[in-house]
Amino acid sequence: MTASILINGELSDVVPAGDRGLAYGDGVFETLRFTAGQPHLWQGHMDRLQRGCERLALPVPDQAQLLREARTVATGERDCVVKIILTRGSGGRGYAPPSTPQPNRVVSCHALPSGLEGDARRGVHGRLCEQRIALQPSLRGIKHLNRLEYVLAAAELAGEPGQVGIVRNTEDFVISSVHANLFLVVNGQLLTPRMDRCGVHGVLRALLLRDFKNRLELRRVTLDLMAAASEIFLVSSVRGVVPLRSLGDWHWDPGPVTRDMQQWHREMVQSA
Amino acid sequence: MTASILINGELSDVVPAGDRGLAYGDGVFETLRFTAGQPHLWQGHMDRLQRGCERLALPVPDQAQLLREARTVATGERDCVVKIILTRGSGGRGYAPPSTPQPNRVVSCHALPSGLEGDARRGVHGRLCEQRIALQPSLRGIKHLNRLEYVLAAAELAGEPGQVGIVRNTEDFVISSVHANLFLVVNGQLLTPRMDRCGVHGVLRALLLRDFKNRLELRRVTLDLMAAASEIFLVSSVRGVVPLRSLGDWHWDPGPVTRDMQQWHREMVQSA
Repeated sequence: MTASILINGELSDVVPAGDRGLAYGDGVFETLRFTAGQPHLWQGHMDRLQRGCERLALPVPDQAQLLREARTVATGERDCVVKIILTRGSGGRGYAPPSTPQPNRVVSCHALPSGLEGDARRGVHGRLCEQRIALQPSLRGIKHLNRLEYVLAAAELAGEPGQVGIVRNTEDFVISSVHANLFLVVNGQLLTPRMDRCGVHGVLRALLLRDFKNRLELRRVTLDLMAAASEIFLVSSVRGVVPLRSLGDWHWDPGPVTRDMQQWHREMVQSA
Repeated sequence: MTASILINGELSDVVPAGDRGLAYGDGVFETLRFTAGQPHLWQGHMDRLQRGCERLALPVPDQAQLLREARTVATGERDCVVKIILTRGSGGRGYAPPSTPQPNRVVSCHALPSGLEGDARRGVHGRLCEQRIALQPSLRGIKHLNRLEYVLAAAELAGEPGQVGIVRNTEDFVISSVHANLFLVVNGQLLTPRMDRCGVHGVLRALLLRDFKNRLELRRVTLDLMAAASEIFLVSSVRGVVPLRSLGDWHWDPGPVTRDMQQWHREMVQSA
């Protein structure tokens, strides 16, 4: 598939060399799944994009316009990923942002990651990354463009196709996989890592927190806690709910909670 | 001055929308001063660029080619700043880098920050930023493109022209100013913050560490230590050696050590 790209609403495949997204990672992005022209979990993505804009003091984009552009680049694709990048545009004096930024938005269509259905059915195997995620409360949760930590974590998996990287923060607590949020079942209790100091607040994670508020606990997750889990699964809006089958010598079977969550996810996407 | 830009050696003002520098901040940069066609502290900048490339597993660029391109964009400027951005180029699968990256390099010419001479003579006034720098030992020192922390720190100074932002890490230790490294004289001892966990290793700082090894100490610098200093100065390869005159209610006069360092810097640049 040749990627189709709209830049500020116009067909293009280049951005100004002075863009602050390139210079400093000064912007935010979202990666959404589109099936038959319909976005998955659109409002969740827009909510996070808006939180990111507010945190960085970027003008909040027009959501109807973004949806039109996303649909345009996804035209003719049965199932694809649409990426939206929003930067502070050009200008300013070095790091200092311009007082009235003229953001640039890049909306592009990409092929789905391969093997999604098989991964959801059979699960995936994890590998512990050495690259840690720094504690930065002021940037936690939002999907900003400063993603070198995740690039370096993903680079550790080169030559090991099919493995997913499990990442910890600089205090050794488990945060997520490189691409998805992580949930555990320990002694029948559903848990997910607290992300009050780092990490990306996934859109599907937010919906789980909303719909299963009463049976879900936020925790500092250690490797020991992972070892004690009866089930572990990864969630992302593009990949859905995926069982984690192993990490090093530890093994887990997809269990009833994981299957329930997969069912919950299927129904939510179908009813949207 | 209209910025002149070379992208991979060709006159252009755009980069591919799929560049990983834009998507993830996946790259490094240098900002150098050029006077009458001659770079200041070229080798120091190239050494840091090389360390950054090695840390990110980017191909190390040809320095002679970079120098030719830097000279080309600086042609006709008596005194200017040349910026070199080197990204991992396009490609890869999401965060995972491509196995054989085709880097993009952007070499551009910009006006000097205004008021440099006056700042060096009279000094500048500091303001403490609320934005903190995260502890990330794996990215410390190198000048990578993940610079949102510095953007947000600089944004705090909006509407206060002429002030420089002083930044601390997430453990409250003083790291630098937004644009320069920081040195203190305390009880006659020359000190500079340890940057083993975060911060940018400045090119001029590295030369000070080399030339004044025997009288210089690396320290965890608290605000209390700044209060106890008899002199404080900022150093950067573009701005030179600049006295810090105040921070909040604290005041410092440019003293003999600062003047010595200015003289040392002048001689080094002239002899280069």
